[in-house]
Order: sequence, then C-alpha cells, then structure tokens
Amino acid sequence: MIESVKVAVVGVGNNTSALVQGIDLHRRTGSLTGVRHPEVAGLGVDAVEVVAAFATSPVRVGRDLHDAIFLPPNNVPRLGADLAPSGVLVQRGLVDSAEVERVAAALTGAEVLLYSAPSGRPDTARAYAEAALLAGVGFVNTTSDPLARDPALLGRFTEARLPLIGDDLASQFGTSVVHHALLRLLAERGLTLTSSYQVNLGGTEDFRNLAEHPDTKHRSKLNALGSERVHLAPLGYLPHLGSQKVAHVNIEAQGWGGTAVSLDLRLTVHDPSGAAGVNIDLVRMAAAALRAGRGGHLPEAESLLKSPPGTAV
Amino acid sequence: MIESVKVAVVGVGNNTSALVQGIDLHRRTGSLTGVRHPEVAGLGVDAVEVVAAFATSPVRVGRDLHDAIFLPPNNVPRLGADLAPSGVLVQRGLVDSAEVERVAAALTGAEVLLYSAPSGRPDTARAYAEAALLAGVGFVNTTSDPLARDPALLGRFTEARLPLIGDDLASQFGTSVVHHALLRLLAERGLTLTSSYQVNLGGTEDFRNLAEHPDTKHRSKLNALGSERVHLAPLGYLPHLGSQKVAHVNIEAQGWGGTAVSLDLRLTVHDPSGAAGVNIDLVRMAAAALRAGRGGHLPEAESLLKSPPGTAV
Amino acid sequence: MIESVKVAVVGVGNNTSALVQGIDLHRRTGSLTGVRHPEVAGLGVDAVEVVAAFATSPVRVGRDLHDAIFLPPNNVPRLGADLAPSGVLVQRGLVDSAEVERVAAALTGAEVLLYSAPSGRPDTARAYAEAALLAGVGFVNTTSDPLARDPALLGRFTEARLPLIGDDLASQFGTSVVHHALLRLLAERGLTLTSSYQVNLGGTEDFRNLAEHPDTKHRSKLNALGSERVHLAPLGYLPHLGSQKVAHVNIEAQGWGGTAVSLDLRLTVHDPSGAAGVNIDLVRMAAAALRAGRGGHLPEAESLLKSPPGTAV
Amino acid sequence: MIESVKVAVVGVGNNTSALVQGIDLHRRTGSLTGVRHPEVAGLGVDAVEVVAAFATSPVRVGRDLHDAIFLPPNNVPRLGADLAPSGVLVQRGLVDSAEVERVAAALTGAEVLLYSAPSGRPDTARAYAEAALLAGVGFVNTTSDPLARDPALLGRFTEARLPLIGDDLASQFGTSVVHHALLRLLAERGLTLTSSYQVNLGGTEDFRNLAEHPDTKHRSKLNALGSERVHLAPLGYLPHLGSQKVAHVNIEAQGWGGTAVSLDLRLTVHDPSGAAGVNIDLVRMAAAALRAGRGGHLPEAESLLKSPPGTAV
Repeated sequence: MIESVKVAVVGVGNNTSALVQGIDLHRRTGSLTGVRHPEVAGLGVDAVEVVAAFATSPVRVGRDLHDAIFLPPNNVPRLGADLAPSGVLVQRGLVDSAEVERVAAALTGAEVLLYSAPSGRPDTARAYAEAALLAGVGFVNTTSDPLARDPALLGRFTEARLPLIGDDLASQFGTSVVHHALLRLLAERGLTLTSSYQVNLGGTEDFRNLAEHPDTKHRSKLNALGSERVHLAPLGYLPHLGSQKVAHVNIEAQGWGGTAVSLDLRLTVHDPSGAAGVNIDLVRMAAAALRAGRGGHLPEAESLLKSPPGTAV
Repeated sequence: MIESVKVAVVGVGNNTSALVQGIDLHRRTGSLTGVRHPEVAGLGVDAVEVVAAFATSPVRVGRDLHDAIFLPPNNVPRLGADLAPSGVLVQRGLVDSAEVERVAAALTGAEVLLYSAPSGRPDTARAYAEAALLAGVGFVNTTSDPLARDPALLGRFTEARLPLIGDDLASQFGTSVVHHALLRLLAERGLTLTSSYQVNLGGTEDFRNLAEHPDTKHRSKLNALGSERVHLAPLGYLPHLGSQKVAHVNIEAQGWGGTAVSLDLRLTVHDPSGAAGVNIDLVRMAAAALRAGRGGHLPEAESLLKSPPGTAV
Repeated sequence: MIESVKVAVVGVGNNTSALVQGIDLHRRTGSLTGVRHPEVAGLGVDAVEVVAAFATSPVRVGRDLHDAIFLPPNNVPRLGADLAPSGVLVQRGLVDSAEVERVAAALTGAEVLLYSAPSGRPDTARAYAEAALLAGVGFVNTTSDPLARDPALLGRFTEARLPLIGDDLASQFGTSVVHHALLRLLAERGLTLTSSYQVNLGGTEDFRNLAEHPDTKHRSKLNALGSERVHLAPLGYLPHLGSQKVAHVNIEAQGWGGTAVSLDLRLTVHDPSGAAGVNIDLVRMAAAALRAGRGGHLPEAESLLKSPPGTAV
Repeated sequence: MIESVKVAVVGVGNNTSALVQGIDLHRRTGSLTGVRHPEVAGLGVDAVEVVAAFATSPVRVGRDLHDAIFLPPNNVPRLGADLAPSGVLVQRGLVDSAEVERVAAALTGAEVLLYSAPSGRPDTARAYAEAALLAGVGFVNTTSDPLARDPALLGRFTEARLPLIGDDLASQFGTSVVHHALLRLLAERGLTLTSSYQVNLGGTEDFRNLAEHPDTKHRSKLNALGSERVHLAPLGYLPHLGSQKVAHVNIEAQGWGGTAVSLDLRLTVHDPSGAAGVNIDLVRMAAAALRAGRGGHLPEAESLLKSPPGTAV
C-alpha cells in the first residue's frame, strides 16, 4: 500500500481552504471533476494528507484547520458538506528568521512544505525554505517571491536531494494560462501581434495584497506572457467578487494581407480553486521526487509555474 | 533559381481575391505581416503564380483575373494599391462531368489545382478532381465536400503520385482553430467541460451559401471540435459585415472542487484572409510534394484542415 | 378588502411555470426581488390567482397545475420550495373554432384570459379571443400573433368594454428592451448609427418553436428596434441552455469628427422569468381596466409590448 | 446674421484637438455625423470660433493653435485633411493666482472660457474662473474640480449674469452614460441590482493624469452612477490605446422569481471626441445664456454633466 503524502502548509488562506475542501470532497464522493491528474507517480488525490499548518493571524492559531479555513477574510464558500474536525491545530507561523529551528522541528513527519502565504514577503519565504532544508522536506513555493530562481538556494536543495518547486504557481486555468495559449496560437498560425492587454479583477485577500504591492507579481506575469506588446492593467480589488476572479483579455493582430483580427474574452474562475488544482499536483510531484531522491528543480513541474528557474526575477 | 509554383484556381470568389491581392502586396512591399511560413520547402510567397482561373458566373468569364476579383458579390476590399492586369483571363468553369477533358486540357502548365469554389457541390468538386488526375496536377480541396475523405479517390491520387490535400481548410485563425485550442487547453489543464457553444456571423457570398446549406459544413466543424458538449448555433448571414466574420464562443466548465469556470470570447477576422493565409501554404506544400513524387495525403497539411482523411463524412 | 384577480391561462409552458412559481414564492416569503410593480391599481402580486388553465398536450390535461408546470419539455427549474397542489386541473385547450363555446363556458368566474401559448398559431389565438368576448373577460395576448393589431377585433373588445392587451410581450429585461434602450441612447446623445446586430440563443420549447417558424416574431422584433440598420441573426435553439436565454448585441456608430464607437454586450436572462415579470403586470392592468369598464387598448400597457396596435403586422 | 460664438480655451490637449478638428471638418464637408445638436439656440456648429488658447507647456506656447494640437503627448489622429493655420497663437496659461488679471485682459473679445485643462488642479481652475468673472465671460468647467458645486462661486456668477456650467462633462457616449442608462433601465423594469463594476482603460495624457490622481474623478463618477452596489476598478493607463478608451462593464441582477440576470459589455470610444461632442454644445449654451443675460447654473446643461450643482464634492 502506498503511504500517504504528508504535507505541511504555510498560510491558512483561501488557497488552503480550497485545497483542503477539495480533497475532502474527493474522499467523500470520489468525484474527479476538475482534477487534472487522478494519479501523479501512483499517488491519488486522496493520498494527500495535511499534517501541519502555520498561520500568523492570532485568530487562526490554535484553531482546528477545518474551522480556521472559514474565518474571514477567507471567502471561499463551502464547496460541499460540513467538514469533520481535522485534528490538525494551526500553529504560529514564523515572523523572523530566529524561528527557523522551531518551525523545522514542527515539520517532523512531513515530506513537503507547501508555501502558500501571500506573495511579497521574500524574507519570510526564505526563512521557511531554510526550515525545510533543516528538516529535510521538499518545498513548494506558490508565491512570486524568488526562491527557485535563486541559483544558490536551488543549488542547496539539489545537493540535499530535496525538491524545490517554484516560483509562482500558474493557476490551473487562470488568465495567464489562457492568454499565453492564445498568443502562442496566434504566433503558430502566423499572425502578427499588434497589441494585447489583460485586466484582472478579484475579491480575495490575496488579490488585495497583490493589488497593493504589484511589483513582484507584475514581473512574474510578464515572464509568463513573454512579449513587450502585452500590457497589464492595474489589478482591481473588488471585494464583492468574493473568491471569484474576472479577467478581460484583448488581442489585436494582423493576418494575411494586413487585415485586422481582434479577440476579446472574459474569463471567470474561482481563483483559490485554480491554485488548489495545481497545488494538489505539485505536492505529489514533490513527494514522489523526495522518495526517489531527486532534489532541486523538477522539469515535470515547469508547465505549472509562472516563473521557473532561469526566468527574470 | 527555384521555379515558380504554377497554380490554377477554381472559383474567383473572395478567397481568391484575398490570395491574389496578398501575393501582390508581398511582391510590392516585401511585407511578411500575417504570413505563417515565409518559406515552404524553399518556396517563398512570391514564388506562387496564378496561371489559370475558372469561374461559372458569366460576368467573370473572359475578364482579367485582377478585375474579376473585385466584381460583386465579392466584397474583400482593396488591400493595397491598384493591381496591374494579370494577363490571366478567367475561363468558363465546368458545369457537368462531360467537360472534364476540356478543363484538364486547360490545366497544361499548372502544377496545382486550388479548388476554392463554394462548398456543397460534391459532383462538381469530384469532376475537377478527375480533371486534375487526367492532367497530372496536384489538388487542394478547400471545401467541405468529401474528396480526400473518399478512400477510393485518395487511393487513385496516391497511385498517380499526385498530392490530394483536403478536406475543408481550417482558417488561419478562425473560430474553429481558436475554439479547438481553448477546449484542448481546458482538457490539458484538467478542467471538466460542462457545455460550449459557437455562433458564427458573416457577410460573404460563401457565408450565405453555407448558411443556406449548412449540412456538410456543420459536420465538418464538429469534426474539428470533437466533443458532443459543443453546440453550434445556426450561421447568421449578415450582409453588412462584408468580408468580416464575427464569432461568439462560450465555454462553461468546472474546476477543482466543482467550482464554475466561464469563458466568453468574441473574435473578428477577415474570413477570406484567413483562407488565403492557409491556401498560400497548401499550394506550396502540394507543389513541393508533386516535385518530390509524393502523392495522396500529406501529413504536413493536416493541421491546416478541418476534415482530413479518416474523419467523419 | 380587494377581491383577487381571477386569471385563466392558455398554455401551461415555461412562462406559466415561472408565473405560478413566482406568485407562490412571493406569497410564502414576501420577497419583492425582481417585482416591477408591487401594486398595480392597488392590486398586489398576491392578489393574482390562477383559476383555470388550458393545454393541448394530453400529458398535461387532467393534471394539477402545480404538477403540470414541471412536465417536459418545460425546463424552468424549481425556483423555491415544493408547491402544494393548486386544486386547478388543466383543461383541454381548443383545437378548432367549433370549441369556442366550450372554452367560453369554462371561463366562468375568470376576469382575464392570459394567452400564453406558443406564437405562430393565429387561428387558435383568435378563437380564444372570441371565447373571451363571449365570456366577457379581458384578454392578454403575449404572442406575436396579430390580435390587438387587428383594428376590427380591437374595436369589438372596445365596444364590449373588455380590455385587449397585445401583441407580443416585451420581456421584463430581454434583448429587445436592452438593445432598444441603447439605440435610443445613441440617438439621444447624437451619435450616428453605422450598423447593429443581435443574436439570440435559447433552450426552451418556445424558443425552438420560434427558431423553426421565425417570421412573425422576426417582424415583431424589428418593430421593437425600429431601424433598418439593425440586423437579426437567426435564432439559435441550443437545448443545453435550458430556460436561460443568451443574447449577443453589437452596435457600431460614429461620434464627433467621425470617430468610431463600438459596443458589444452579452446578456443572459431567464426567459420565462422575463415573461412572467411582465405578465404579472398585464393581468393586473387588464383586471383593473375591466373593473373600471375600460375596453380595448390600454395605453399604460404599451411599454410592456413589442407590437402594440398601430405597428406593422 | 448670427454672430459667431467666440471661445477662449484653456488647455491645448486632446479634447481641444478633437474640438478644433471637428469644427473644421464640419465647415469643409457639412457633415453632421456625430453631431448631437445641429443648432443650439439658433447657433450652428460652424458658428463656434476659437479666438484664444492658453497652455502651460512651453512647446505649445507661441505656436499656431492648428500646429499645437498635434504636438505630443497629444495623440488624437488627424481626423480629416490638413488644417490651414488658425491665426490663433497659443498664450502662456496662468500658473498662480497673481496672473488672473493678465488672463482676464487676454479674454477681451471672447464670450466663453472653455476650461479644458487636466482635472486635479482646483486652484488653477478657480483662478481662471476669477479671470472669467473679471472679464465678464461665461465659464464652462469640463473638469471634475468643484467650481459649479461651490455655492459661493456659483452665486457670484449668477449675480454677474454670467453662466457657469459644470462640473465634469459627461462624455457624449462614454462609460458613465452607458452604465447609468443600463442601471436606470434595470430599475425601471423592476429588476433588483446585485452588483456591478466598471473598468476603464485609456491611453491619453488626461487618462494618465486621472489614473495617477484618481480621487476627484472617482467621486464624480460615483455621483453619476448613484448606487453603492456599483464598483469602480482602478483606471488602467495603457499608452498603446492612444486616444481610444475601452471600458468593460458588468451588471448582475435578479429578475422575477429571483432568477439571475447578467450583462457584460465592452465599449470602445474615442475619448477626446466624446468630450468635444459635448463641449460644442456647452459653449453654445453658455454663449446663448450670456446673450440672454442668464447667469449661474443652466438647467439645460445638466444632462451633459457628471457632477452638476448639488451633487457631492
């Protein structure tokens, strides 16, 4: 029998809520709706088990994980029936690097640390990476803070035979993925791009954080789109959208004979679900690599990331 | 020096207008805007030369090709400067199979017959294919009438070492191409398709013909999309659109945890340009294959076709 | 105390389902969501009572109205809690004019006949109008069949002091209403309309009926839009949409200095709700007029109709 | 013969460019495309004459107005043929209130001062208003800086029998006008608004200014929309759009029975044309009022303004 994948999560926000709820939904109903890979290296969705959770908000610390994920400002709705208590109590996350050892100690029994905190705190991200190295667990960086793009840090994980997956998860079906696919299609078909823009609107705390500190994320998005003719409008934090994200994408191009081609699309997704649907794969990839003794960058994760090693910081 | 590709066209409609005008524009300006393949097997865009043209409309027959392409109901606008006379006079197209030999004789000097007449006249299409076999020229079937999907006919071209490319060209960047790419992306990313629809509106004579005789084309479009959850609204012939085509595409899906994902897009393209941008490649592929002694189906053309051999008739 | 408005309905389709369910929802919850006029001439929503119903489908005849409204092909979902039996059994509708007297007899006790059958059966519509005249009840024609636009018939209702409201209800918030409002705004603001189109997609039986017999409705829609620069694409019957309707509207115009203005919109509505939200007003207007001895055309109903008296047939 | 309307303009930006070019186009071609009122109080479009212009940019000062309007960062394209020299040389605008008298002196011969500078400089706006009072000319404030909303200032214009039109012009057919019309329609038809958002993208210098200093404008826009359920995304300055503006508007509502209604629209307009098409009316209204001895607020201008007297500052 395959041993379950033991995951510690940092951040008890919407993405963690969607991940935890989706796993529970799958366990209860067997549903594979929206599941990209029923198995990754032989590991099913139900093989993933959250064994520890860290948060900084005092109202979350000490609560059962299955309660904590529904506390505001989280706004992912209940996706299924009520959850039974998880038995995992949320622990206090680290606030400075002096706490690396405490966190490392708390990782005992975990194989993968899923770093799912808000983007824009590179020092915190790095401190958790140090804790993972110390504890000997794999690391998944879902934020745009540059960890896997730091060759020195990546080298240390490689040497330690610990996978380091990152940076910045590409949502399962988010704006970047769709926009990029259309731009690639345009190029493949031989059309000439004139201009393109992307507008993103959302209502989560994560989104608010990005809207107020756009820099890292902006860079990471441009990495994903890869053309100077693509323009990003400022993120629009609209609380009434809740955990939904709305994107407007425009593409203007020229075809044979210089004739005009226009494409406009509106995409609505449930942002935390788009993250969880990728995280469920990343943690299984990390666990499988760890078990196989493969450290550092995992090429199989590349298509799930916006800014893998080698892209601009 | 590479010998030019001598093409005979059947049909002096909008698609031929866009092809002829685009080649002229490229010759005069060197522009590669909207050109998918600057070279195909070493053959540039300017290597393509139209040496004969067939039409059934009495007002076109006998006119210089560069005049005939602007006669109504054609409505592709002038894409560049005025065209000098081509020296090619439009010949009377065949109306019954008794004329196969006359047409075959008129193909002398051509390497490729580009069949660019309206869809929905399978007997006529087949008669031209017979003429091509008789004259020893390659054949490109841009209509949805089943020629390349007829194994017996395809076998005769293969045996005669004459390429038979078809059926039904996939526009360079049309609704089918974009819709299919998005559905494939959705599947690749692991989302579960709920439903999808496609609406097409256009103002050309070709479009009117399809709107009034939807059956063959409808089948061919569904071949291209490949899911029973995709629905096609009836084609809307709206003359005021001229040679522009407008499409509305909707995709409803479910992501991780069963959450809703919606995508709506509006695409405007210049339909005849989308055809010409593919035809310029198909005729070069056909010529290159002919010169290399390769007959029948050409795998390299498959991605440019909606209903290649093996798909449903 | 105000006496309740006694309504007989012809047609037990989706529109009747939405009307009956909405009244019940209002009675149980007091909700005024989506209610345009809490009172019409002192009559509340809860004053409306369906006292008789006619249908032609054998599976509906003899069933309680609250069961019959959920039988296929009806596809309005349950909008609230389960309905208690209504006590109204669906009666056999008339199939030829010999049955006018039978129907008139069955209208005893009703004040208003709400004609909510499919459009496109003018003889049937007229026969019900005769029954209403005979029974002395007001008549509301929600179909595009010309009754109120027939001056002779309208004159007979006027003379008999019976209201005749019609033809063709303008949905509470449907494509025509929105499209018309935008075209009017454009004109008010002084822009010059270049072209406009409208695409309607739906999944109800009514919609299928209209898609297959478009003529009367098409005329009625153009009456509502009132410009030869507005083009209607063929209706698209897409069963997967259920009782939802989707419309795509495009407007191209020119502003000051001849610069281009474009507007594209996508509207999704629940079609039967849009009808019921108007029908609840029309039956109250008809009852109030009847009680006041006012017959024939009611000016106060005009804004709720697509083709009132005086518009083209 | 009617005397021409002599206008002094403050600001030689895109709006002035569109105004000046549109008047010239009308004079040369007689075209009334996009003209809302061929006559205002008997005054035609060709009655409007720009007799003085003020700008702060040193590159504009001293140039002929017909040259200055095409200097960067202005990006309204040439709307027609080349313009002959206007004979009006751009004068240095005021930078502090000590210059009120100089400006007042320069207004000799003008009847109306059209204040068309960037929003967000209330002190400058007020200084020009003082100059207008001093010179005895009417004032049109097209910016969102509060002048007409200041009862004291408005009172002084009223007393002096000088019209003061403002604040903040409502574009001839901009996002606010369309959004507001749809929200009003929704209410009229009895639907219940759930939520709504508006995204604005543009590429002019004015737009950049607003995007970087959003406060006044934001307030003014909310005045125009009038519901707390309407949300504004941050303005997106996308230079590649040039003088085009693109808006995305979403409206979510509930209809009869609580069913969902969704409306999404995309609007593209030429922003400076939308301003000029209103300014041509405002200056004629101001001149007509001045000639009739009517001062202060003009009710006939109210529908052309976002924040008329009495709305929130």
